[in-house]
Amino acid sequence: MTKSTTQIGRELSETLNPGMEQALDARYGHLLPGMAEGVVDFSYGRQYGRPGLPLRDRYIATIAALTALGGQTKPQLKINISGGLKAGLTQKEIAEVIWQMSLYGGFPSAINALNTALEVFEEQDPSD
Amino acid sequence: MTKSTTQIGRELSETLNPGMEQALDARYGHLLPGMAEGVVDFSYGRQYGRPGLPLRDRYIATIAALTALGGQTKPQLKINISGGLKAGLTQKEIAEVIWQMSLYGGFPSAINALNTALEVFEEQDPSD
Amino acid sequence: MTKSTTQIGRELSETLNPGMEQALDARYGHLLPGMAEGVVDFSYGRQYGRPGLPLRDRYIATIAALTALGGQTKPQLKINISGGLKAGLTQKEIAEVIWQMSLYGGFPSAINALNTALEVFEEQDPSD
Amino acid sequence: MTKSTTQIGRELSETLNPGMEQALDARYGHLLPGMAEGVVDFSYGRQYGRPGLPLRDRYIATIAALTALGGQTKPQLKINISGGLKAGLTQKEIAEVIWQMSLYGGFPSAINALNTALEVFEEQDPSD
Amino acid sequence: MTKSTTQIGRELSETLNPGMEQALDARYGHLLPGMAEGVVDFSYGRQYGRPGLPLRDRYIATIAALTALGGQTKPQLKINISGGLKAGLTQKEIAEVIWQMSLYGGFPSAINALNTALEVFEEQDPSD
Amino acid sequence: MTKSTTQIGRELSETLNPGMEQALDARYGHLLPGMAEGVVDFSYGRQYGRPGLPLRDRYIATIAALTALGGQTKPQLKINISGGLKAGLTQKEIAEVIWQMSLYGGFPSAINALNTALEVFEEQDPSD
Repeated sequence: MTKSTTQIGRELSETLNPGMEQALDARYGHLLPGMAEGVVDFSYGRQYGRPGLPLRDRYIATIAALTALGGQTKPQLKINISGGLKAGLTQKEIAEVIWQMSLYGGFPSAINALNTALEVFEEQDPSD
Repeated sequence: MTKSTTQIGRELSETLNPGMEQALDARYGHLLPGMAEGVVDFSYGRQYGRPGLPLRDRYIATIAALTALGGQTKPQLKINISGGLKAGLTQKEIAEVIWQMSLYGGFPSAINALNTALEVFEEQDPSD
Repeated sequence: MTKSTTQIGRELSETLNPGMEQALDARYGHLLPGMAEGVVDFSYGRQYGRPGLPLRDRYIATIAALTALGGQTKPQLKINISGGLKAGLTQKEIAEVIWQMSLYGGFPSAINALNTALEVFEEQDPSD
Repeated sequence: MTKSTTQIGRELSETLNPGMEQALDARYGHLLPGMAEGVVDFSYGRQYGRPGLPLRDRYIATIAALTALGGQTKPQLKINISGGLKAGLTQKEIAEVIWQMSLYGGFPSAINALNTALEVFEEQDPSD
Repeated sequence: MTKSTTQIGRELSETLNPGMEQALDARYGHLLPGMAEGVVDFSYGRQYGRPGLPLRDRYIATIAALTALGGQTKPQLKINISGGLKAGLTQKEIAEVIWQMSLYGGFPSAINALNTALEVFEEQDPSD
Repeated sequence: MTKSTTQIGRELSETLNPGMEQALDARYGHLLPGMAEGVVDFSYGRQYGRPGLPLRDRYIATIAALTALGGQTKPQLKINISGGLKAGLTQKEIAEVIWQMSLYGGFPSAINALNTALEVFEEQDPSD
């Protein structure tokens, strides 16, 4: 029997960010019932969980976009840089993706995102 | 002897977009002398030509960013979708990258970019 | 028995934009299987179809956002201005929402969106 | 006798944000004489004070736009969420407006704006 | 007796864009009464007509911003490039301002704005 | 003998921001070898160091663009407001440039940038 997109999303979400659905529901559910399930179903079940592009490549795309869109997405950029490292991107590859964005989102966005990446790398690797 | 970034850029630019430097200079050089060389040196020599990330992955990043930034970059999105196909991305992979951007740049940007991709695919593959 | 978000979305989508799911699938389905259902489920079932805010107010929000985000979303702005009229907004109210956005997205975005609204109004009301 | 837009703006500004004109003038007037009056005249007298759209609906439009434009407008988003509550929007309605923006400004912008709304709601309602 | 900002704006607007107020009112006034006067008062009377910065410098600022914001503001970019030429900027200076924006709004925005400038220059100078 | 753009950039960079190249290399060079030289060559040698537009005018353009692009570029806005003061812009002229951007990037961006300018002015001039 085929899994529903919600099931696919929930499994992937639990692998990548354990406890996220419960955390979203605890924080926003009293205002927006069903919102947490919607994030799981759409973001994970219908996007990141799609076949057709490896997770590593999906993180390249996301890190690039969040960099180009600028610093207002810093919390999400941090989460996705962590996710990219888990999906097999190296620190250098992530830095390359971000720095290339100086061409599309401008130098300030690229520099700010590099600083965000350094923060994540330092948290990941306490010997830095 | 090490190649200069301008030489590296010029070789890569000629491979990916033959005649681009001359075209830029013919169009903008009377107003902005040296601008064409600057594009070649910075975009190709110091960005796309860097080691550390395969060209295919660089196109994923660029297509993602141009999608998320919205339709004002349509001419550049077309060029980079073509470039991504030449660098080994499939039509489906490009569609996946673009559609994933509905999460970051919104649904209108993603739909508009899918339409741009369809235009490129149709030009590439006249049997469509 | 409770309806699924996909069912809720499909019914609302059929009311607001008859044939949209089939059109999306015909256009993008060969590249992105399941994408059309995802739009229906998320946009209509999990967003526009939510209780808690009348459809008229949802169109105010959407028209405001698309205006402030600028002209790259013109096709979607047209669809949502039409949708807003059907949901009970008057032409004047839509113009007010758009013009107010001069404060947030700048004067060019507001003027461009007013021009888009005039196009929709003229198509709606051939006596203009 | 008709009120001038400056008078209309000043009355509305005093109702919604008492002391704002003086605060703007004290802060920016030495650099930009007349700027505070310009904000009052244009924002309040010629926009929020216009007939044709209820204040409640104007706040829906503004909250939607500031959400979609992203986190760089957080101080203004807080002010307008407070304003929307005073104009009769409920916490749930504001959350609906913001969450709907995931479709247009992306998920990160919507989540960040929900967090800003939670901050405002907690300040408003200390029993939360 | 001091001129009102509306009078100052109207005189400057008539000098820079003769007939603009009437054109705005003819086009939008049935939906938004008073909007044309608001543009004249705020944009021209309270911004471009302010002492403290020469008109030439104001056009540098505007051309830079519209370039960085991207192609959705093309109609306004054309108007302001024309305005900048009348205020004493040379074609080369305008090109410099635009190209510098590659650092802040990205290369696509800068290239697209250069193309817009070339369109304006060709209309201005038929011997090109 | 003609100077290379890297030499031109290095001299200008050392004048405007002494030690910047070394600081960039120390911070990012382990991930992105050559990046610091690329910033010097492109930003300073091929942009700010170009003849054709005085440095003062270049800062007008940059401050305008960073304002319109919104608060995500605050660190860069601070650097460029300082740079503009050194290049001969007065505090009032900078405030005029920023406030004019309310027309293009919206009121929140302009107000936020004015606040950033006040921070810089206070650091520059402790008697304020």
